[in-house]
Amino acid sequence: MTAGTNQNLSAARPTFVTHLECSMTGERYEADTLHGLSRAGRPLLVRYDLDAVKANLPRRMLETRPTDMWRWRELLPVRGAENIVSLGEIETPLIPIPKSAGSANVLVKDEGRLPTGSFKARGLVMAVAMAKELGVTRIAMPTNGNAGAALAAYASRVGIETIVFCPEDTPEVNVREIAMQGARVWRVNGLIDDCGAIVAKGAAEGRWFDFSTLKEPYRIEGKKTMGLELAAQLGWTLPDAIFYPTGGGTGLIGMWKAFDELERIGWIGPERPRMYAVQASGCAPIVRAFEAGEEHAERWEDAHTVAAGIRVPRAVGDFLILRAVRESGGKAVGVGDPAILKAVEDCSKKDGLLLCPEGGATLAAYREALRTGEVDEDERVVLFNCATGLKYPMPAAPQVLDRHAPIDFDAL
Amino acid sequence: MTAGTNQNLSAARPTFVTHLECSMTGERYEADTLHGLSRAGRPLLVRYDLDAVKANLPRRMLETRPTDMWRWRELLPVRGAENIVSLGEIETPLIPIPKSAGSANVLVKDEGRLPTGSFKARGLVMAVAMAKELGVTRIAMPTNGNAGAALAAYASRVGIETIVFCPEDTPEVNVREIAMQGARVWRVNGLIDDCGAIVAKGAAEGRWFDFSTLKEPYRIEGKKTMGLELAAQLGWTLPDAIFYPTGGGTGLIGMWKAFDELERIGWIGPERPRMYAVQASGCAPIVRAFEAGEEHAERWEDAHTVAAGIRVPRAVGDFLILRAVRESGGKAVGVGDPAILKAVEDCSKKDGLLLCPEGGATLAAYREALRTGEVDEDERVVLFNCATGLKYPMPAAPQVLDRHAPIDFDAL
Repeated sequence: MTAGTNQNLSAARPTFVTHLECSMTGERYEADTLHGLSRAGRPLLVRYDLDAVKANLPRRMLETRPTDMWRWRELLPVRGAENIVSLGEIETPLIPIPKSAGSANVLVKDEGRLPTGSFKARGLVMAVAMAKELGVTRIAMPTNGNAGAALAAYASRVGIETIVFCPEDTPEVNVREIAMQGARVWRVNGLIDDCGAIVAKGAAEGRWFDFSTLKEPYRIEGKKTMGLELAAQLGWTLPDAIFYPTGGGTGLIGMWKAFDELERIGWIGPERPRMYAVQASGCAPIVRAFEAGEEHAERWEDAHTVAAGIRVPRAVGDFLILRAVRESGGKAVGVGDPAILKAVEDCSKKDGLLLCPEGGATLAAYREALRTGEVDEDERVVLFNCATGLKYPMPAAPQVLDRHAPIDFDAL
Repeated sequence: MTAGTNQNLSAARPTFVTHLECSMTGERYEADTLHGLSRAGRPLLVRYDLDAVKANLPRRMLETRPTDMWRWRELLPVRGAENIVSLGEIETPLIPIPKSAGSANVLVKDEGRLPTGSFKARGLVMAVAMAKELGVTRIAMPTNGNAGAALAAYASRVGIETIVFCPEDTPEVNVREIAMQGARVWRVNGLIDDCGAIVAKGAAEGRWFDFSTLKEPYRIEGKKTMGLELAAQLGWTLPDAIFYPTGGGTGLIGMWKAFDELERIGWIGPERPRMYAVQASGCAPIVRAFEAGEEHAERWEDAHTVAAGIRVPRAVGDFLILRAVRESGGKAVGVGDPAILKAVEDCSKKDGLLLCPEGGATLAAYREALRTGEVDEDERVVLFNCATGLKYPMPAAPQVLDRHAPIDFDAL
């Protein structure tokens, strides 16, 4: 299908959003109005009339549509097709990595194939479409890199102005990408929550709308499509376990919501995967809270890891992550940088798939879980590679050959 | 579909390859045997029993399959499903770029979404699968970057050893990627054809199999799927014009072959797009030969351009490129580096799509063709973005903000 003829992007759509509600208190908020956090300072969740979705969307109808993420429109918040902003949000492939995982039953969902090379595109395409629908003209965001690039690309496409703040040590490729995609971007001497404080201040002064993780209600609806897609790809079953790289945790929360919605429209049963929230040992607030039995996670001081995308000291949706992990019978687990780098190298050299460090973290966590017996080799497991590995430093280097000198072919 | 349940990857397949033939002389060669160039020193083309394909593959059967490139198996050379090596060869999306193209009818086929981030994956996945089928254990290749990465990834995955030679000024990200994907890689003081000479010498000594562009017969069969896919995506019609970044020209030759095969199985009519072979002004051997009315193109001396992928001074398939361009009523056109860089910047900042320089060259060529009246604004045009823009230098840079100092929000 072309973008021009893809019915997913152009068909008038019945929409089923009834309201939004506070993820902590359950307080109701009106749909079709601009919202940030709830009055309790917590994320808002979008609610649908799922009985009506069930009545109006036979599964066989969904199955005839092109497989990009707009096939799920009855479970998404965008009401007007004219507000869709698309850069080709394809269904991402599931790729076995038998050699580096040590099991033929491990599949990597390669989110690096999405626009701007990361799963951030799922959340941001939805949030930008809703921003357009609700009349927003200026957006600001703190980012470790990939979210900023996705925001910039989609917002530029629809003519919304964007201002992005990154931690000072964000890799050059990420900040340049954000600038190339048309945003104004600033390096800030601090971490992502320090950048978030600047965004919050500007938002309080009415200078822009705050697009921080979970501070607007629609990124989670976009990220939710990871769960919807996985169910469709696995023939309306779910894997035994999911390993998810967890910074702000939007995707984990979103998938958990997706599974619930799919069950309520009758497309899957009550079975759920064990959800493993994977963090880096150098920044593991959710792991610490999980192990301590806490409902909320305190800020992690002195955060450091090669996996910048999960270097998130404090997550506004902490309690939602912890709740999903516990309900699922999973765990929050930390992995060290050496294990992350080794996983990236093994998967690239043995299975031909170059993961990002955060994707490498999920493989490292899986290998550790396999070693301890937390997972069995015959369990079906999905690891999320959240971005293309091409954006990250690669240690392997070439040698040099002088073609004018005699070549020792035996030594090549 | 998972890789595990995707029938495209696992179904026993009737195959229809009858023989190979010399693209220059028509001399027949046996299938199922390892071949390089023909005795005339020209590329070999794979031939199929297209009447049998027509009888055995109703179009509606194809349309029910998952859309990855293995859906086309009756028109591909791999006979045994066990030889398929897959990293998720998805159907690449078509993305409108109305602002930077100046027309709503221009679609970019974004090949950067393929494994290893470029269209080279199409050719190499097929060539490696055939190498496996035919028992090859050691492969060498000259590359400007992306082909080497694709070869390394697929070959590593199936345990075939690879040795790759790059021009000395190949970007660091490309050579590191090749090394990360498990190949042994060397920088050589010269251009791609100088690297090719080393590969040819080693191949003549029996040290490895030569995987240079068009020197083995199967990369073109993989690249052909660009044409097959385009027809399917456009509802079994073809665009009015295709702008294709042309180095070795495998894709252009492949698409031309694909259109012919589709017509012969009755899925499209005799209409063809005008094929525009886009080169850089600093390395334009095909353009020079086209304008001079020659059948072959002489080596271009002192080649230079920011678009390294099309810095190919001499193409072994020159006469096939020129033949397709002329039969189609298209042209070979050169564009300068400033126009290429401006096209990349405009498309990224206005339409949210970050092209590679070679993709930028197609946009630059289209804009020039629109200006001169060579194409009309209402013609449906497809540009090929052959790789993700993330691998290339990005000029835009961020500014720095001190969070401890007072922030002048008005100046952000």
